[in-house]
Amino acid sequence: MKKAMCAGIDVGATYVKIGLVSSGGKIVRKTQIPSKIHAPAAEMLGRTAETIRQMMTEDGYELAGIGIGTAGQVDVDKGILHEAPNMPDWKEVPVGDILGGHLDMPVVLDNDANVAAWGEYAFGAGRGTRFMLMVTLGTGVGGGMVLDGRPYRGITNAAGEFGHSTLDMDGWVCGCGRRGCVEAYVGTQGFKRQVAEKLKAGRTSLLTRIDPEVLMPVDISRAADEGDALAVEVFRDTGVYLGHAIADVVNLLNLERVVIGGGVAKAGERILGPARETVHAICLRVPSNAVEIVPAQLGNDAGIIGAAWMAGCLRQDE
Amino acid sequence: MKKAMCAGIDVGATYVKIGLVSSGGKIVRKTQIPSKIHAPAAEMLGRTAETIRQMMTEDGYELAGIGIGTAGQVDVDKGILHEAPNMPDWKEVPVGDILGGHLDMPVVLDNDANVAAWGEYAFGAGRGTRFMLMVTLGTGVGGGMVLDGRPYRGITNAAGEFGHSTLDMDGWVCGCGRRGCVEAYVGTQGFKRQVAEKLKAGRTSLLTRIDPEVLMPVDISRAADEGDALAVEVFRDTGVYLGHAIADVVNLLNLERVVIGGGVAKAGERILGPARETVHAICLRVPSNAVEIVPAQLGNDAGIIGAAWMAGCLRQDE
Repeated sequence: MKKAMCAGIDVGATYVKIGLVSSGGKIVRKTQIPSKIHAPAAEMLGRTAETIRQMMTEDGYELAGIGIGTAGQVDVDKGILHEAPNMPDWKEVPVGDILGGHLDMPVVLDNDANVAAWGEYAFGAGRGTRFMLMVTLGTGVGGGMVLDGRPYRGITNAAGEFGHSTLDMDGWVCGCGRRGCVEAYVGTQGFKRQVAEKLKAGRTSLLTRIDPEVLMPVDISRAADEGDALAVEVFRDTGVYLGHAIADVVNLLNLERVVIGGGVAKAGERILGPARETVHAICLRVPSNAVEIVPAQLGNDAGIIGAAWMAGCLRQDE
Repeated sequence: MKKAMCAGIDVGATYVKIGLVSSGGKIVRKTQIPSKIHAPAAEMLGRTAETIRQMMTEDGYELAGIGIGTAGQVDVDKGILHEAPNMPDWKEVPVGDILGGHLDMPVVLDNDANVAAWGEYAFGAGRGTRFMLMVTLGTGVGGGMVLDGRPYRGITNAAGEFGHSTLDMDGWVCGCGRRGCVEAYVGTQGFKRQVAEKLKAGRTSLLTRIDPEVLMPVDISRAADEGDALAVEVFRDTGVYLGHAIADVVNLLNLERVVIGGGVAKAGERILGPARETVHAICLRVPSNAVEIVPAQLGNDAGIIGAAWMAGCLRQDE
């Protein structure tokens, strides 16, 4: 008898990541293909289906389910990708119908930040909890939630916009057009501005060597590793900003765990430590006592594993 | 055959409100007795039970269920009131056991802000929704939520602390000890400070006649009715503050409806109008389109009706 595998797919603006996931939540094989976002989405979905079919055949597996996460606004019930800011040519794409048609199987679609949260919930840092927020730190700041043991999506599947919580009504301008959002402080643009403001104040730093326009969080990380005080301070301030925004959510939702993931989260305790201290310093006592702030565990695999989990063919008890 | 009625009880620091509620959610009879918060809680619960028994007997009703809401931290599963800031002598009170013992029936206990939210959800301004936040504006600012059609309580039943969302990390000091909470701006103390800051800036107003220490929102309301520009502005600013905090929750939870209640909400559209405009101006498009901001409908009865509903003996379809 062939062994059953679940396909988990994570569509980003550059690559489509595709994995075969065992019923116990382990990725047994994975690959990635270019997204080619200016070609029709149907073409990308066709290549994705072909890739999955090849992987299944080569290894002699049987397909048990398919889950797919994409950036942007999606309709979970209908399996449609409405639109995604980073993939502007793809609009109103019937992802479920197209991919499911190729592979002759129903497909579950959701937003990528949600799918990463489901992955961490089911097999990563959120395991064993019933009330969890995952915060994804990258170019932008995303969020996904599991509330009362169930993936939380809201009335029109748009829930989780943690990145646009207000830190300061009159604060820095955010990409969304409003002021003082957490993303304006701790997204990639936020890091640039944090560094620029400190340099403008006359501080010295290894970061003066880097063109502020192309400065990335990884440069700040390197400078911090070399003992640069300004760089260390930027991560600490980032943790404090993040802690304020997390505290609001913890007060509101009385969460059990907050999982911090995404590329920037690689700065680890430099951000997490101050975030944790801030949350426990400013949250009300009861919700503060109930929550822990932890790093994500699955890294870039969270999307693949979460997508496979969402398809309903994994078991958490293995 | 006797007609079945559900008892709904709303315990505040001054009065215990008691109502008999029909299965269709109508209060058929209500009364209130003094809370006497410095006497033992068991004494208050004894008087409450006696009052319910009398009301049932006089009108020839049969008791179908009992729900009770109290201020403070409660354990819903065990029916215990842990503590309540405004009733400091009552700690670790087994409310469910005591009251249920008197009336020989299980009792459901929850926090009063939650219970008011359940009332509006089942029979008031939240009717027909599945994703709802109720904001209660009074001395403090409370919140209660129904998410995905279910009362939301969080991991340790402490959810709903909407009043302590940050508007400004460096803002006005709140009663909770941190800075810039929404309650610091739009709770009773917040109103006093709003007025004081405007007067300090040299503005003229009818409110200069009132001792700032005893100034209440109702005084601002009267001044606004008389056309006082500063008073009108205070309500508008209150709506804007509130709108910022609501926008964060709407972005995070993708709600269908936000219900504004509590004594201060009597200022009506003076607050609600600017709150609504602010939410729609600063929320992301999809969650903004999905949500409406409406006034509460049940007034002081929300607690009684919500408590009765929580006991499981009402039907929403009558």
